[in-house]
Amino acid sequence: MNDIAAYIRADRDRFVADLKEWLAIPSVSGDPAHTDDVHRSAKWLTRYLRDQGFPIVEVWETGGHPAVYAEWPADDPDAPAVVVYGHHDVQPVEPLDEWDTDPFTPVEKGDRLIGRGASDDKGQVFFHTLGIRALLAASGRQAPPVTVKLLVEGEEESGSVHFADLLRTHRDRLACDAVVISDTTMWAEDVPSMCTGMRGLTEAEVTLRGPDGDLHSGSFGGAVPNPLHAMAELLASLHDADGRVTLPGFYDDVVPLTDEERELFARLPFDEDEWLRTAGNSRAAHGEKGYTTLERVWARPTAEINGMWGGHTGPGGKTIVPREAHAKISFRLAAGQDPGTVQDQFRRWVAERTPHGVEAEVRIPGGGVRPCFSPIGSPGVKAARRAMERAFGTEVLFTREGGSGPEADLADILEAPLIFVAVGLDGDRIHAPNEKVEIPLLLKGAEAAAYLWEELAAALR
Amino acid sequence: MNDIAAYIRADRDRFVADLKEWLAIPSVSGDPAHTDDVHRSAKWLTRYLRDQGFPIVEVWETGGHPAVYAEWPADDPDAPAVVVYGHHDVQPVEPLDEWDTDPFTPVEKGDRLIGRGASDDKGQVFFHTLGIRALLAASGRQAPPVTVKLLVEGEEESGSVHFADLLRTHRDRLACDAVVISDTTMWAEDVPSMCTGMRGLTEAEVTLRGPDGDLHSGSFGGAVPNPLHAMAELLASLHDADGRVTLPGFYDDVVPLTDEERELFARLPFDEDEWLRTAGNSRAAHGEKGYTTLERVWARPTAEINGMWGGHTGPGGKTIVPREAHAKISFRLAAGQDPGTVQDQFRRWVAERTPHGVEAEVRIPGGGVRPCFSPIGSPGVKAARRAMERAFGTEVLFTREGGSGPEADLADILEAPLIFVAVGLDGDRIHAPNEKVEIPLLLKGAEAAAYLWEELAAALR
Repeated sequence: MNDIAAYIRADRDRFVADLKEWLAIPSVSGDPAHTDDVHRSAKWLTRYLRDQGFPIVEVWETGGHPAVYAEWPADDPDAPAVVVYGHHDVQPVEPLDEWDTDPFTPVEKGDRLIGRGASDDKGQVFFHTLGIRALLAASGRQAPPVTVKLLVEGEEESGSVHFADLLRTHRDRLACDAVVISDTTMWAEDVPSMCTGMRGLTEAEVTLRGPDGDLHSGSFGGAVPNPLHAMAELLASLHDADGRVTLPGFYDDVVPLTDEERELFARLPFDEDEWLRTAGNSRAAHGEKGYTTLERVWARPTAEINGMWGGHTGPGGKTIVPREAHAKISFRLAAGQDPGTVQDQFRRWVAERTPHGVEAEVRIPGGGVRPCFSPIGSPGVKAARRAMERAFGTEVLFTREGGSGPEADLADILEAPLIFVAVGLDGDRIHAPNEKVEIPLLLKGAEAAAYLWEELAAALR
Repeated sequence: MNDIAAYIRADRDRFVADLKEWLAIPSVSGDPAHTDDVHRSAKWLTRYLRDQGFPIVEVWETGGHPAVYAEWPADDPDAPAVVVYGHHDVQPVEPLDEWDTDPFTPVEKGDRLIGRGASDDKGQVFFHTLGIRALLAASGRQAPPVTVKLLVEGEEESGSVHFADLLRTHRDRLACDAVVISDTTMWAEDVPSMCTGMRGLTEAEVTLRGPDGDLHSGSFGGAVPNPLHAMAELLASLHDADGRVTLPGFYDDVVPLTDEERELFARLPFDEDEWLRTAGNSRAAHGEKGYTTLERVWARPTAEINGMWGGHTGPGGKTIVPREAHAKISFRLAAGQDPGTVQDQFRRWVAERTPHGVEAEVRIPGGGVRPCFSPIGSPGVKAARRAMERAFGTEVLFTREGGSGPEADLADILEAPLIFVAVGLDGDRIHAPNEKVEIPLLLKGAEAAAYLWEELAAALR
């Protein structure tokens, strides 16, 4: 065992005890009743980071809940700078009666630490503090080999509404050569992996209008356009026979999967039957032709109807030609796509396909979420993979996430590549009762974080 | 002016006064508060029909509201028998504040008689009483040349729920050679016409099921079947590019329109722009290729989506793959089609088209309504057309009705052809505030009814 690993092992109990203190603060950003607690959490963290030795620690106020910023300058003024992103707010805990223990009285059970925020995301922020301490202690250095800029947001679980503004306000302070994100998961406890991107998102609502009011289907049925028929035809044409989205130009900007990435995805031990069970016992896999299930979910864009309604939806029959039909549609965007471009493509697509005699209205709420992407061949990702492999002692594979988050803002506003280093598991029950984290994985995360600064110092110089 | 027309003109005031007495009884069958009034209406009618000279007058009780039966046997025991169908119950009068006069205080304004039931259907039952009286008075006969069996239902406006049973119970008494229906409309005051059929109806509800619960579209979108997509595709395929319903065998039993019928429909003064305005300002006509609007509505079967829903239908976005999709669909059936056959075709069609990974359930409420059809070349219709033409002094054209009613039961249970003889107008505001009837048309109806018995006696013998 090297000195870093030994330091971390020796520090385990203190690390867990400190984390438990932080987890006990119910920093639920989505609940106004917990506003003071989110502030308390930020304050607790600033004191802790000062104790850990960070020379610069500040609370950054926003229009909502505060973020914490801590900086540890490198000893070499020419060394690269790295922003580390995490968040100190947590999800609500309802339904409370499904928790086996109090969500804000963290409990150790064997190697597990149970409590709201243990995995998402306080535990994952925390392993960085242990990592940097272990690196300095083991190497005898006074400062890390890169400038570490820790940014711990307070609104991630309530939509990060002020986050982009915060980044713009502090852009100069946050100037960096890479952004390390520690808020995702690995494939499995024994299959360490790194996320390399998240899909973007844009949503739309379509209304198709026919007659001024519902018509008697005996008097008018079969002789005027029925908006529900028009909606069914419109949405049926959203995909072609190969499951590809039919918006012209939709795939033009998508960054294609490389052979290497597909090969690495394929090496993940994926059990499709098991996956279908987690997909609400879905009866079959289904999607774009030519791609595996993981590729479809992680790296390919989609169009989904999220809701559809019109006409008579209550009990019994009502023989009408309805006046209107509605649908809510969302697009998950793959690396390279821009929400605004897809919004324009969708508006044109609806306008071109709306049948004669029906009037279409497209409403698009907000600008959407940009996808983010961290190519496996980039120097930063390669360096982080080496750090992870040193900590885990095994090959590190790659995943992506199908969901969407504010991470793209970090890349876009700070103009720096993203690197995902995290040790959560899909089974950590984040956002659900009985959230937990595996303590040995947090310690591996700390170890990887310790190696990370050395690796990045070499790779990014 | 012949004797019949002269008798009717002379009787006008007494006729209207008597009708007003009947209209004053609020026989709203759909409102339990008016149950006694429906009975009063039946009782009033029996006394009136006895006064008119009908030798046999009875109240026929049902499981709900009573019908009135009156028979006037022909002088010749070998003469044909004809059932005349109408109803003595009326629609509710709400919204009451939109009536210019009290709905049950009938008022004459010039040639119009205003009050609930004036056109639908008391006025139209009533013209038969004047018709038969005029015929006997003018001809000096003691009895009509056919046996007239007047059946006046008391539940037509509340679904005719006991009507088929009533017909079966009294099938022997109602044995006849034709059924005259006096409960429809003419094309226009100056374009007398006869209805020659009504469409049938059958309804269905389809549920498509995917995952056990709504799924996160980030984690699963694009890789499992989405029931709303499946529903859009299923329902988009309900019609082909020519607007024809794609159920295999759907058109097999449809009685085709004859060239003569199409030519006669085409002679009706039809203004499509005006029709579109009445169709809730629909923006375009639309339907089965190769047919005019009137042919589509009257003589062709349709499939209409009456309602569709699934997933998130409230405000804001919710990026899910929904667990279920629902649709309510109804078919208007043309002459010759059987609701049960179409129901079987629809079940098979859904089963064959349900995509892999989605489970379909089809629920069909009730047996549907059979279409009814009265071919323009049949002896009864030809005879009735002659009677109408004698009364109106002009050519009588033909229409059909796109809606559905219990008339097919009369044809099926009594095994007799239908003949529609009526003088209502689409502008009579039946089922709406300020219902009215044109008194001159009721008198023309009485005149046509008087000629009808002579014409039918010759035609049906």
